[in-house]
Amino acid sequence: MRTFMDDHFLLHNGTAVDIYESIKDLPIIDYHCHLDPKAIAENARFHNITELWLGGDHYKWRLMRHNGVPESHITGDAPDHEKFAAFCATMQDCIGNPVFHWAHLELKKYFGYDGNITAENAAEIYALCNSQIEREDFSVHSVLKKCRVEWLATTDDPADDLGYHKQIRDANAHGVPKVLPTFRPSQVLEIEKPTYAAYIKRLAEAANINITDWDSLRAALSNRLDFFAQMGGCISDHSLEPPVFDPSVTDNDAAKAMKKALAGEGLSSREIVAYKTRLLSWLGGEYYGRNWVMQLHMLVQRNNNSRMFKLLGPDTGFDCIADESFSLALARILDDMESRDALPRTILYSLNPTHDDLLATMIGNFAGRGIRGRMQWGCPWWFNDNKTGMQKHLTTLANHGMISTFIGMLTDSRSFLSYPRHEYFRRILAQQLGEWVEAGEFPRDMNRLSKIAGDIAYYNVKNFF
Amino acid sequence: MRTFMDDHFLLHNGTAVDIYESIKDLPIIDYHCHLDPKAIAENARFHNITELWLGGDHYKWRLMRHNGVPESHITGDAPDHEKFAAFCATMQDCIGNPVFHWAHLELKKYFGYDGNITAENAAEIYALCNSQIEREDFSVHSVLKKCRVEWLATTDDPADDLGYHKQIRDANAHGVPKVLPTFRPSQVLEIEKPTYAAYIKRLAEAANINITDWDSLRAALSNRLDFFAQMGGCISDHSLEPPVFDPSVTDNDAAKAMKKALAGEGLSSREIVAYKTRLLSWLGGEYYGRNWVMQLHMLVQRNNNSRMFKLLGPDTGFDCIADESFSLALARILDDMESRDALPRTILYSLNPTHDDLLATMIGNFAGRGIRGRMQWGCPWWFNDNKTGMQKHLTTLANHGMISTFIGMLTDSRSFLSYPRHEYFRRILAQQLGEWVEAGEFPRDMNRLSKIAGDIAYYNVKNFF
Amino acid sequence: MRTFMDDHFLLHNGTAVDIYESIKDLPIIDYHCHLDPKAIAENARFHNITELWLGGDHYKWRLMRHNGVPESHITGDAPDHEKFAAFCATMQDCIGNPVFHWAHLELKKYFGYDGNITAENAAEIYALCNSQIEREDFSVHSVLKKCRVEWLATTDDPADDLGYHKQIRDANAHGVPKVLPTFRPSQVLEIEKPTYAAYIKRLAEAANINITDWDSLRAALSNRLDFFAQMGGCISDHSLEPPVFDPSVTDNDAAKAMKKALAGEGLSSREIVAYKTRLLSWLGGEYYGRNWVMQLHMLVQRNNNSRMFKLLGPDTGFDCIADESFSLALARILDDMESRDALPRTILYSLNPTHDDLLATMIGNFAGRGIRGRMQWGCPWWFNDNKTGMQKHLTTLANHGMISTFIGMLTDSRSFLSYPRHEYFRRILAQQLGEWVEAGEFPRDMNRLSKIAGDIAYYNVKNFF
Repeated sequence: MRTFMDDHFLLHNGTAVDIYESIKDLPIIDYHCHLDPKAIAENARFHNITELWLGGDHYKWRLMRHNGVPESHITGDAPDHEKFAAFCATMQDCIGNPVFHWAHLELKKYFGYDGNITAENAAEIYALCNSQIEREDFSVHSVLKKCRVEWLATTDDPADDLGYHKQIRDANAHGVPKVLPTFRPSQVLEIEKPTYAAYIKRLAEAANINITDWDSLRAALSNRLDFFAQMGGCISDHSLEPPVFDPSVTDNDAAKAMKKALAGEGLSSREIVAYKTRLLSWLGGEYYGRNWVMQLHMLVQRNNNSRMFKLLGPDTGFDCIADESFSLALARILDDMESRDALPRTILYSLNPTHDDLLATMIGNFAGRGIRGRMQWGCPWWFNDNKTGMQKHLTTLANHGMISTFIGMLTDSRSFLSYPRHEYFRRILAQQLGEWVEAGEFPRDMNRLSKIAGDIAYYNVKNFF
Repeated sequence: MRTFMDDHFLLHNGTAVDIYESIKDLPIIDYHCHLDPKAIAENARFHNITELWLGGDHYKWRLMRHNGVPESHITGDAPDHEKFAAFCATMQDCIGNPVFHWAHLELKKYFGYDGNITAENAAEIYALCNSQIEREDFSVHSVLKKCRVEWLATTDDPADDLGYHKQIRDANAHGVPKVLPTFRPSQVLEIEKPTYAAYIKRLAEAANINITDWDSLRAALSNRLDFFAQMGGCISDHSLEPPVFDPSVTDNDAAKAMKKALAGEGLSSREIVAYKTRLLSWLGGEYYGRNWVMQLHMLVQRNNNSRMFKLLGPDTGFDCIADESFSLALARILDDMESRDALPRTILYSLNPTHDDLLATMIGNFAGRGIRGRMQWGCPWWFNDNKTGMQKHLTTLANHGMISTFIGMLTDSRSFLSYPRHEYFRRILAQQLGEWVEAGEFPRDMNRLSKIAGDIAYYNVKNFF
Repeated sequence: MRTFMDDHFLLHNGTAVDIYESIKDLPIIDYHCHLDPKAIAENARFHNITELWLGGDHYKWRLMRHNGVPESHITGDAPDHEKFAAFCATMQDCIGNPVFHWAHLELKKYFGYDGNITAENAAEIYALCNSQIEREDFSVHSVLKKCRVEWLATTDDPADDLGYHKQIRDANAHGVPKVLPTFRPSQVLEIEKPTYAAYIKRLAEAANINITDWDSLRAALSNRLDFFAQMGGCISDHSLEPPVFDPSVTDNDAAKAMKKALAGEGLSSREIVAYKTRLLSWLGGEYYGRNWVMQLHMLVQRNNNSRMFKLLGPDTGFDCIADESFSLALARILDDMESRDALPRTILYSLNPTHDDLLATMIGNFAGRGIRGRMQWGCPWWFNDNKTGMQKHLTTLANHGMISTFIGMLTDSRSFLSYPRHEYFRRILAQQLGEWVEAGEFPRDMNRLSKIAGDIAYYNVKNFF
């Protein structure tokens, strides 16, 4: 029997241990997350472990809700130590859940705590963490430095002035990671939402271009893309829920749909699809022209609980996996760009793991042009970011393609403590590679294995952006 | 190498053995099955093992059909000993199939037979079982007592008079489990079927309420719900094939659709959906108001072989897994109830295991309100009720939520001998928990592990209803 | 740790070794492949290992594209030794990919090379293979003989004159496998394609029947079916992308749709479905009447990259897995035939492994009529033809049915060297059976295990056709 979460955690054979040894100290590049640039710019400090762990982490909130913890002790007004106790009482029963492992890894990494998270230990852990958090040197910067984060990419709206990004760049503080903005034009594409016209006004102000039609919209977006590029941006991100593509529509259809939406008129679904089709197609070309990477996140079903949405807003733990058919629309989007020689390097993510094989084969359709790892099936995302999800991802990717060209893990997190998830991934990666070797399915050539593991853990992503 | 199906069957490490030891003797609560209340009320006796095993078990029939056994020896007129021989000759080649394990567990549990089921042993097994079945004390009650069944819930039509349930309650025989009726209003919802109007008449008679419209329908259903509650009922069950929900329809639309159906007029698909949407929404509130549990069974594709349907009717082995998209409709149904503060505790089942992750995240959308395990993703159902299905279910549930709040296994069976499936589940559960511990992924705290295992095996379900 | 790909490759316990020993020398029946009958008829010889391995193998091309190899070195004009070097440099990083294993198995089997495929070894391997390929006795026939191929079935168009098949039959060369044609009427069914009318002309010429309408179409197809049967044909193959079935259409609707298509008029989707529904239904009966086997291949999304399609045409590595819903249409197709007593023995394949459980239960709907293994869920196909895909297939099939009635593996390949994939499958099969036994889940009865394994590896398929 193995000791609980010791140094060889998740490593079950000698080859895995050796591989992990060779990659564990590589820097981290977190190419997609939701960290708050303001907190980085201002090197924010924290009040206590409840704020750090439970302040905005809907993964943890969901578990507490399953456990019957009242909302007062999750997002409500209960005292912080009571919330923390309720969290620990939940954790102790979360066998098999990744948050259980992440939380223990985080306690070890940031606070040097080696024990178990239980209701009984809650007060002790609370005191221990808080005493460290109160120390002068415990801040956003110290936390990021501790994990050797080389750079990270936040997720930003095209209308954002990126003021905090500028502040971070200008400060250029020693050991603090580079922080790149990511261009995520969700609100530009969501023409069906009642907030569309108001958002377009905001965008116009940001670009200082009067947006009245399709042409001026694109001019404004071009302007913002250039601005993001100036601020170090080289990544875009789209949430396609689900991907839609109508090959029969024209820019003219998109322009008409936009006019109607700005005039407050309702749109038919064909008009909505026309706008989304043409705008995404055009944006792809813009990304390509700037040598950016495009990310497409798919198959999320958001805000399912309207009662809680009214109380807490979005991103509070009421999203789930969707199950629409999307392979044809997605292929057509990519083909539209590819056939105009305008397909950027692209990362595809599906929240529904049932599409793992589909995506692993979809990227093969557009691989090539002499670019190694040009098309990526992104790492297990959100609900899939757990041990079996990662094992399945690595195995499926290896089955259908070249795992050695994979750009690896990201956190997708809002939490500054989430970097041990990279450790989690690296352990699972080392174990999987080691398992193949120990089973006689790949030669035990440590040079090659370290190369492959190092590429996936760090070097591929470094070269990709 | 492990001995074939010995005492440590499916238990591959010491922790698993210890965990199983702590739960193996807990009582069984079978909260969803299709046992015949008449047979329980009358403490039916059996003629022979062929009747017991092959009388109505379409799991076994399907295997025999795969094996090329002629229908005469499955559901036809062949002599019982020949049918049994054909079954044994099939079994001996069913490597990897759960029925193979269930059959061996049942032989051991009920008949003390330790050997293998083979064509060669068929006559011996037949004689052995029948000699015991012929004994005075071998009856429905004795079989249920032997497995420590605390209570079980049959599946019943709202128009049923529950006469046998009353008989069982009145007899209150020592050691015989409580038998609860389950309210399954399939025929009320199936407005598109030609039998709808006739069924509504039957329902009207049962409720002694003249059903002429939407209001009187609901009055009659209220009446039947109250009657079921008087008879101990606290569970409902729906088969949604697939879930449908139209947010734009009103009670008025449902009422109009119902009028047309009663008048024998054909309905548009929007009218069908209107009726189903409003009726299910209303029923949810009724369940909630009575503090009942709602079960939703989804993604079955029934009666695929119309030739055999004509010969044998439904539930004879010609159903399969469906693959419609349903996540949005399902979320809208639940949200409709939740936003009116009328969502009962609910158990979701999908026959298509491709939706495992979807459902494990769907329940998170409506978890909360301070109720532990309020929303349940039901145990692997029907085709999924096998070793890998259960392992995947436990792992997926643990990945996305709190396995420790899971209400565990049921039989869903028509067979009185099916209770060893609970043993099968408990072994797999113990093995999974033990595996996590032995791999160093959870502390070896036997108190906690016994608590978690015991909750899943028995206590959670006891507290849920 | 196990040695890399030694004699016990993929066999991890004693029972597995024993089982494999009992089946490894059985002949091979490759009941579905895409080998070129001309090359067999003419006993073609090869120029070098690049032609053999990279001449038409889009599995390998896809990997090279992922690795950033320029198209010149994949399908382009680069010298053969450079292409081979680029392939080896790709291979060395393909950990976990089945092509990595196949390539090593092929080197061992055909060329006696035991080393690793690496960039470093590329020149050595190139020289070694080519020296053997240049030898007089290295030819298509020698390669097929080496693998004990008993018979194989190519994939052929109904308009094909099967001249090469005749030549092969007439030659009846010693040790050369029987070569059966497979009737694949894709172009007959693809009424929506612009090439339809031209194809119908070609078909008319082949049948020597003037095709002007629905009746003459069926007469011509009958003629071709008879001709294929004369040439040894007993298998048909359909690519359903996805399956469609409209129960409301008549032969008259199909006939009208056909008239319009021949006249060059556009068809509505209902007309397309009418034609496909009625034609497939009729063909099923024709297959049944001739005692043929029907294969249905589903869920492919082809030619996704139109830029590359223009350059290279179909089957060049730009296909992927589709995700349409199809369970209802498929069931209706099969039921349509079954209810007319005209359902042939059928093999169902889905490229999307998410449907594994669905298909494993779908075959149960039409199993029976006293025919062992009447309905087959075909082996893991194309992208799924890898270790985990096969393990999942075997486990899923065992869960839902009788693995022992499975007709096992095929190559589906265009490559004459692909027969070691049968070895790959047999090893995985032996390991899976052995694992169940060693875990105590099935008795260690070597007679029974050898029988089951032998049936799956060879005897079932021998008896099926």
